[in-house]
Amino acid sequence: MTYTPPAAEQRFVLDHVVRIGELVDDSELVDAIIEGAGAFAAGEYAPLNRLGDQVGARWVDGQVVMPEGFRAAYQAFVGGGWGSINAPEAFGGQGLPYALATVVMEDLGTANMGFSLINMLTPGAIEALVHHGSPDQQAAYLPKLVTGEWNGTMNLTEPQAGSDVGALRTTATPAADGSWRIKGTKIFITFGEHDLTDNIVHLVLARTPDAPAGTKGISLFLVPKYRLNPDGTPGEFNDVRCVSIEHKLGINASPTCTLSFGDHDDCRGWLIGGEMGGMRAMFTMMNNARLNVGLQGVQIAERATQQALAFAQERVQLGKPIVEHPDVRRMLLRMRALTQGARALIYYAAGQADRAHGGDDAARARLDLLTPLAKAWGTDVGCEVASLGVQVHGGMGFVEETGAAQHYRDIRIAPIYEGTNGIQAADLVNRKLPIQGGETVAALIADIRTEAGDEPALMDLVGRIEGVVRWMLGNEVSPEDRLAGSYPLTTMLSVAVAGWLLARQAKAASGGTPFEQMKRTVARFFLDRIVPEAAGLEASAKAGAEALYALNAETLAA
Amino acid sequence: MTYTPPAAEQRFVLDHVVRIGELVDDSELVDAIIEGAGAFAAGEYAPLNRLGDQVGARWVDGQVVMPEGFRAAYQAFVGGGWGSINAPEAFGGQGLPYALATVVMEDLGTANMGFSLINMLTPGAIEALVHHGSPDQQAAYLPKLVTGEWNGTMNLTEPQAGSDVGALRTTATPAADGSWRIKGTKIFITFGEHDLTDNIVHLVLARTPDAPAGTKGISLFLVPKYRLNPDGTPGEFNDVRCVSIEHKLGINASPTCTLSFGDHDDCRGWLIGGEMGGMRAMFTMMNNARLNVGLQGVQIAERATQQALAFAQERVQLGKPIVEHPDVRRMLLRMRALTQGARALIYYAAGQADRAHGGDDAARARLDLLTPLAKAWGTDVGCEVASLGVQVHGGMGFVEETGAAQHYRDIRIAPIYEGTNGIQAADLVNRKLPIQGGETVAALIADIRTEAGDEPALMDLVGRIEGVVRWMLGNEVSPEDRLAGSYPLTTMLSVAVAGWLLARQAKAASGGTPFEQMKRTVARFFLDRIVPEAAGLEASAKAGAEALYALNAETLAA
Repeated sequence: MTYTPPAAEQRFVLDHVVRIGELVDDSELVDAIIEGAGAFAAGEYAPLNRLGDQVGARWVDGQVVMPEGFRAAYQAFVGGGWGSINAPEAFGGQGLPYALATVVMEDLGTANMGFSLINMLTPGAIEALVHHGSPDQQAAYLPKLVTGEWNGTMNLTEPQAGSDVGALRTTATPAADGSWRIKGTKIFITFGEHDLTDNIVHLVLARTPDAPAGTKGISLFLVPKYRLNPDGTPGEFNDVRCVSIEHKLGINASPTCTLSFGDHDDCRGWLIGGEMGGMRAMFTMMNNARLNVGLQGVQIAERATQQALAFAQERVQLGKPIVEHPDVRRMLLRMRALTQGARALIYYAAGQADRAHGGDDAARARLDLLTPLAKAWGTDVGCEVASLGVQVHGGMGFVEETGAAQHYRDIRIAPIYEGTNGIQAADLVNRKLPIQGGETVAALIADIRTEAGDEPALMDLVGRIEGVVRWMLGNEVSPEDRLAGSYPLTTMLSVAVAGWLLARQAKAASGGTPFEQMKRTVARFFLDRIVPEAAGLEASAKAGAEALYALNAETLAA
Repeated sequence: MTYTPPAAEQRFVLDHVVRIGELVDDSELVDAIIEGAGAFAAGEYAPLNRLGDQVGARWVDGQVVMPEGFRAAYQAFVGGGWGSINAPEAFGGQGLPYALATVVMEDLGTANMGFSLINMLTPGAIEALVHHGSPDQQAAYLPKLVTGEWNGTMNLTEPQAGSDVGALRTTATPAADGSWRIKGTKIFITFGEHDLTDNIVHLVLARTPDAPAGTKGISLFLVPKYRLNPDGTPGEFNDVRCVSIEHKLGINASPTCTLSFGDHDDCRGWLIGGEMGGMRAMFTMMNNARLNVGLQGVQIAERATQQALAFAQERVQLGKPIVEHPDVRRMLLRMRALTQGARALIYYAAGQADRAHGGDDAARARLDLLTPLAKAWGTDVGCEVASLGVQVHGGMGFVEETGAAQHYRDIRIAPIYEGTNGIQAADLVNRKLPIQGGETVAALIADIRTEAGDEPALMDLVGRIEGVVRWMLGNEVSPEDRLAGSYPLTTMLSVAVAGWLLARQAKAASGGTPFEQMKRTVARFFLDRIVPEAAGLEASAKAGAEALYALNAETLAA
């Protein structure tokens, strides 16, 4: 199954949702990036998707061996400059909007989700160094990270510290030479070890001596796999070992490593930002990472939809291709509608990130509000659409050779990593609804009302959302009540934003081309069928926590 | 992860949903079966679940080799008489209600879904022979099938004939000895070859010479792997070969075989029922199979819930076990509520099957109405709960060692086989709603209103269902409109029935024991949060087909 980059759709969403013309003068450059990234991903990454799943990254005596062809494809990525789109020009980047980097990332991940994780995580390391690194650190590491010659990793999780980052135990002890000695074990480190680059730049959260407990006592360290020689080239091995990789449900092309730092007490790290400044730097590092994970939902949804559409046109049952059967149509349109809805939400958020980067505080606030929606609902959409893709294939969908099942396996991690979707929902109700005393969410709702006031189901949903938000921001509600309704509200608000942006696109697609017809039909499906479903979540959102705690844990398990 | 049979829950549902006392006099026998089946499944089948997944059935030179321990466990199943619960006493069965066989099947599948498929399919062969076999066929085959010494298979699917059974090409040619020569290839044959029994009884749909095209020209044949000697023991090999098994997403303990019949023109089959009577016999064979597949949803949901509950009580994050976090509670209660709702629906349908078997025509009509709901919604519940199980585990859920991912993989076949869920939905709106001119569905709705009139959300849902049903049974609606809304209606009606039966259980659980508290809390969760969600599907159910066909297939794929 080949991958056809959705170039017309990407351009349309950039124009009407991101309003890319406000961010880049050169419209031809936008087209060139869309077309170039799509061709690159389809040509170099997509052909390795099956191999990445079936052979995958292998752990051999402490080394991680990638399958045949991955190194060449990665070199082509570096050579094409695809990692440098939105990196600062001062460090060799192109200084273009993050919204355009989003297009590139979408193409890479749709072509090969597991492989593209190496491309997705390096930007976090770049962000951390741009904002918190010393000039020397920046000069030494940023140019190599921007090209992708070296990749970056995020080392947060430890066996006892998953969602609870503050529980980590890795230590950093000051050394005479100004560096720190790092010691500890990190798990679930994506591309923490591999044979694609000649150095790996680990960003590691650790605890300094006498640091307070919890998140306040955490600092961030730069820990290269190989220390740098005076000329900047990789030199001595830095005592970081990959002791195993996970056997996972999916994304087998992405080695998920357990890294052991300082087995021989010779692992050196360099502080990034101030001591105890780890959480702040971590959030910078994860700045756009949550949008990028939400985007993975779009990636797999797009790929699964393309594959299901192709199958449904070829597969004949009861005298006609199954695409002609109403319930198969329903599934295919649902796949298209969810995919385009999630893309609209995430691209829109990316556009807000660019405006925030330019100093627009309202855009910053809106981005903050939208980020948990993009991550949680984007990944939920990816899982649902991948499952529908299996279903459209019938029995062939359950057979691994078809490839539909790989999408279903690959995407299942996305609702979990980079903050589980439950954590996103908690973030929404605890930290994001209260921004500016609720004015940020009120402004979003007002924008939806103004632009899509002629969509009755959407207006009904928005009214219900407003009621839930008012209730959650009120005084009678307990923190548990808010959290009990957090997930349903996340879905409701995500669907409302996606519906709004699809309604906008439907108006813009007023012509008679097949693409415009498709955009209008897909938007109608979303607004008439998916939006009313989300209204059905209102009761859950407002039901409160009492029933959740009516039983103690043992009785719940009785 | 061990399996704890939910004996109290099973008994409670048998008492209050099935009203088992009306079907069996001996209450102690009911307890003995619940406890015995649970202990057997937990002791013999559950310990093989991981091995079945990781090693699985292997194809070696035309033979299928099951992993170590499976043969002994299967022998224990035969020895325990667990396959004979509801088989006729005339053929060695115990003549007990199907509702009790449902308990046994639930336990086996919760312990080891892949393995239990051998137990799930044999009853179909028994049914076909009981209803359509000749006395000689019955005498020769039924006693061995009833004990499970031989297993039965259903051979329907061919590469071009999946949902479209009428497109099959396997041929049967009359031979001088009164048998038929079978020739053709069947795919996706569950336990079509294995080393657990000393014979395999294939029931094969084939086309006789000059038979009309489509489903009308299909006949059913009994095709043993080994022909019987005069003394009834397995004799000469019957020219049926397993040429490959599928590499699947899950249920790896179940060999999914491609069978080639008559490679050497020496495969003999014996007609079951009359020539061209294949479809009727097939529907007999699949009689309860759809309920049993729906029950697989309950099985995996139960197992995933038990595993998630255990993990959530042990895993500490942010200073407390994650079971204490509101959104984790929400997930766990949702898992419990969906599982118990699906169990109630399916056990209820099983009770109707027993009454129908006893000649109750109203029960027969209600069973026919409920069967597509049980299959479609039961399996959808299985998939959703397994996915929530992965989510509760966080990053550990994506690691195969944990076992949560196996449930997610295993259950994904259930919405596909035994008639895809889309086919179930079509069956509901095309054949089941019109039973008795709509009186059957009206009677169901009336029963729900009478018994659960004090549940406002359920009454709201039921009112919406009534409107959708009225619209679908009306004259202005096209067949495509009905089918376009078939899947949403299937979900709505399933949730209403489950909500009704949970409300009944909540009233019956009026005491203060932990189990009764749990039943009441779970029912409230379902009625207050899941029922209103289903109301949100009304718009989709009534939206019609026009928007689905606004685009031709090429434009949809544009």
